[in-house]
Order: sequence, then C-alpha cells, then structure tokens
Amino acid sequence: MPSAEMTLFVLGLAGVAVFSVSGVLAVGHKQLDLFGALVLGVVTAVGGGTIRDLVLGLDVFWVVQPVFISAAAVAALLTVAAERLVSVPRRLILFADAAGLALFSVLGAERAYDTGSGYVIAAVMGLLTGVAGGMLRDVLAGEIPLVFRRELYATAAMAAALTYLASRAIGLASVPAMVAGVAIGLAIRLLALRWNLGLPVYRTRR
Amino acid sequence: MPSAEMTLFVLGLAGVAVFSVSGVLAVGHKQLDLFGALVLGVVTAVGGGTIRDLVLGLDVFWVVQPVFISAAAVAALLTVAAERLVSVPRRLILFADAAGLALFSVLGAERAYDTGSGYVIAAVMGLLTGVAGGMLRDVLAGEIPLVFRRELYATAAMAAALTYLASRAIGLASVPAMVAGVAIGLAIRLLALRWNLGLPVYRTRR
Amino acid sequence: MPSAEMTLFVLGLAGVAVFSVSGVLAVGHKQLDLFGALVLGVVTAVGGGTIRDLVLGLDVFWVVQPVFISAAAVAALLTVAAERLVSVPRRLILFADAAGLALFSVLGAERAYDTGSGYVIAAVMGLLTGVAGGMLRDVLAGEIPLVFRRELYATAAMAAALTYLASRAIGLASVPAMVAGVAIGLAIRLLALRWNLGLPVYRTRR
Repeated sequence: MPSAEMTLFVLGLAGVAVFSVSGVLAVGHKQLDLFGALVLGVVTAVGGGTIRDLVLGLDVFWVVQPVFISAAAVAALLTVAAERLVSVPRRLILFADAAGLALFSVLGAERAYDTGSGYVIAAVMGLLTGVAGGMLRDVLAGEIPLVFRRELYATAAMAAALTYLASRAIGLASVPAMVAGVAIGLAIRLLALRWNLGLPVYRTRR
Repeated sequence: MPSAEMTLFVLGLAGVAVFSVSGVLAVGHKQLDLFGALVLGVVTAVGGGTIRDLVLGLDVFWVVQPVFISAAAVAALLTVAAERLVSVPRRLILFADAAGLALFSVLGAERAYDTGSGYVIAAVMGLLTGVAGGMLRDVLAGEIPLVFRRELYATAAMAAALTYLASRAIGLASVPAMVAGVAIGLAIRLLALRWNLGLPVYRTRR
Repeated sequence: MPSAEMTLFVLGLAGVAVFSVSGVLAVGHKQLDLFGALVLGVVTAVGGGTIRDLVLGLDVFWVVQPVFISAAAVAALLTVAAERLVSVPRRLILFADAAGLALFSVLGAERAYDTGSGYVIAAVMGLLTGVAGGMLRDVLAGEIPLVFRRELYATAAMAAALTYLASRAIGLASVPAMVAGVAIGLAIRLLALRWNLGLPVYRTRR
C-alpha cells in the first residue's frame, strides 16, 4: 500500500472508531438493549460513508475492507465494557465527536474528488459523510437528528470539506489539504461548543 | 441535447425547484436552524429520485448533472430569503407541492420504463419518486410521513404513474403520455384537497 | 431453474409474504390510511433485501424478479381484506414474524456468501436482511425500531446467520445449512417470546 493510501486507511479507521464510541454513548439514555446499542454505534460509524459510496456508485468501503466494520464493532464493544468501569467525561465525548466529524467530512470530500467528481458534488459528499451516520443513528433512536439543531454541527462539516477542496484547488497536495480541512472543521465546532454559537432558527411566517 | 431529452431536463429542474420550496416551507415549525432547513429542502427535492436511481442500478441523476442539486439549493435559499419579505399563501404551497408530486411520479415512471423496466417496476418507481423525498424529509424532521395520511397523496402519485404507463402502452409518445399523467395526478390531488377526500383509515381488530 | 435455485426462490417468496402480513398487522394502531398500510407491508417485506443488495452492489432482487414485489403487495392486500372477516390471533402473527426473521437472516447470509463475500460481511448481511425491513417500517410509522428492544429479536437474526455460515464452513451443503440456521433462529426467538427473555438494557452512567 503506498503511503498516501496508508494515511487515508489509518485516518479512516480512526474516524470509524471515534464515531462508533460517540454513537454508543449518544444512545445511552434511550433504553435500548446491549445489542441495539452496539448496532447503533456501528451505524453511526459507517452510515455516512455507506450512503456516500452508494450515491457515487462506488463499492461500499467496508464491504471491500471488512476491517472497517470490525473496527467499529470492537470500538462499540469496548465502549460498553469501559463504561461499566469508568465514567467518560462529557467534554471528551464532544471532542471525539468533533474530531470524527471534521475527519469524515474531509475524507468524504477527498473520496469524491479523487474518484472524479467536481467541486459541488465533492462538497456535498463531504457534508453527507460527516453528518449522515449520526443522522441515521438519531432517526433509528427515534429523535430529530441533532445535526439540524446543534451548534454549527453541519456548518463545521461543510467548512471542513470546503477548506479541503479549496486547498486542492490552489494546488496543495492531498495530505496538507486534509490537515487544513480537519483543523478548520474542528476549530469551528469546538469554538461553537465553547461559546454556544449557532445559526438562527428558521421559522415560517404564519 | 435532443428536444425530448431537453423537455425532460427542464421538467426535472422545475420539479426539483418546486419540491425544494415546499420542503423548506414544510419544516418551518420544527425549530431547525437555517442550514438544516436548507438541507431538508434539498433532501425533499432530490431524495425520491436518488432512491429510484439506486434501486434501478442507474447513476444518480444529480451526481451526473450537479445542476439539479444546485437548483434545489438555490430554490431553498430563495425561499428562506423571500419569506423574510412576503408571506407565502398556503394555497400556493399546496398547489406547488401537488404539481411537483404529479410531475415527479410521471418522471420516475418514465425513467424506469425508458431504461427497460416492465410496467410493475415502472409504476413502483413512479410512486417512489413522487413520495420518497417528502417521506425522507418528514422522517428527518421527526414526523410520521404525511404521505400515509394526507388526502389521496400517494394515491395521486400512483394514478399519475399508471396514467403515464397506460398511455404509453396504448401507443402514445412520451410527451403526450406525460401530459396525461401529470394532468390526472394533479387533478386527483387538487380535488382531494378541495373536498377533503381521503382513503379510509386502516385499523387492526383487537 | 435448477432445484437449489428453485428452493431459494420459493423460500424467498414465502418470507416476503409472511413479512408483508406481519408488516401490515404491525401498523394497525397507527391511524394510517389503507394505501399507507399496504405500502408499509411491502416495505417491511422487501426493505431488508433491498438494502442488502444495494450495499453488496448487486441488482436489487425485486427489480430483477418483480414477482417478489407483486407477492408482497398481494399478501398485504389479502391481510387487509381478511382482517375484515376474522380476527388474527396475536400468537400466529408472532410466529409468522419469527419464521420470516429466521428465514430472511439465513437467505441474506446465503446471498452474500454465494456472491463471494467473506464470513464477516455475510453475517452482517444476514442480520441486515432479517431486521432492516421491520426497522424501516417502524421509522416510517414514527416509532423507535422494535428490533432494539424486543426479546432477542436481532440476536435471533444474528444466530440464524451465524449458524448457516458455520454449517457451510464445516462443509454442509446450502440446503441443510439453511435448515439448521432457520431452526436455530426460530427456536431462539420463540423461546425468548415464551419466557420473555431479553438482553440487558444499555444505559450510560451520569
């Protein structure tokens, strides 16, 4: 495996693991059974990339490389087990989720861009990859997806994807462009959490 | 682009724009943030056709022609902006949505039929294309899809698709068959709204 | 059609019919209209296999063989009609649903395994095929999917798929392996219903 591909592989595994952990923790108050919590962790981790690959007409990444779904399942299992022993601080969960969000948004845009999509589709795929797994989890757990309400959540995903694509457009190589995208996405989300920033609420006139 | 294809392209753009507008307006009471409202407008507009293309094994239409997703996004943005200035009458919204429904149902049946599907699959795809975008929007907004309850909503979609297919079966060309399908679908939906018609409610015996 | 393929075809039709019946009956208290109840029966019946085929990159089974979707629609129609005449005992519904669950899980694992997937993916596809149709129905009806809560529901699906795959791994032919998988899955689900067995509930620490 060449080193750029290896970098993507390792980052992808990290993103899957982090999102699986945050997915399991997010359903902790829903009275699901243990297996249900594991499944929702895995769905959170691989859902966004699955929809992205289907829409782009690519082979689904975890069917080609089953280690991704195994990693998600192991991360979910370890989360359930670890929680019996220690209490996970809420700030750590939010940071992990923000890191996963920025990473997935960049990886999603990268995958679309490198398989020949233009900028519009690549940006949409970045957003989709970042937010769709969590949306799927929320819908399956009977909740309105947080992405539509939480502090600059989808906005951070979009910014991460756009930063990556803009960096590529001005000639940066893939890895530095990814670093830039993740940094911007993570910064926006963490600042929004810190100062409780959000977009205005949309309301139709009566 | 030959003229029949051009007609389909223009009608498709019109359908996407109309459904994006009605999608944004439909979530106006859900306390979503601005970006969430835009995303749900776009999802309403392209969701049905996306699922149709995936199930038929075709390239997803807006990935091939990104102008469709751009049009949906622009229509959603304009809706949000316009609403700050004027109040959109409810009757106009319902009419636009009915027009989109009839149009998408016919276009969905047409796409399946012209890519080689038989009548059963083409009818299912018409129904799916007409109603799935709105269903996806409702699920993501935390509601039971209106399609299962509203006055002859799915019924109008099915009638539009079947009228189109029957017209083709008796030898009509594509464009007149589409006109017939849209006319029937639109008429059923508007009459149902006017006189508050609906199917009986289904209830299991205790 | 060779006889092994014929067996799969007949079992698939039976599974689709049974799940369509249980899908219609499951939404009997949701105040949907008649057409909505039919659609949700069909969705329950073909939803799991549809997602499986999409993720595996195969042609969707009911697009290739529309008789499957016709069978689902007919079964749903007959259910609505029959219910006007007789009251269906709850135990019969639960048994039919358990049989469909075990059957679909085995057929899902079989389809993945026979098209070249390894054991991990085949097991995931078994689980997915067994439970996703019902999950989709619940989401569309505005409920948290029962699969995450009900007595060993997903567990029975997973056990059926794993039994099938283990039987193949030790050299059994497809049909006896399927019998073994269905028997185990059905037994687990029925025993869980009989004695009200379930997995522990997952709860995060505060």
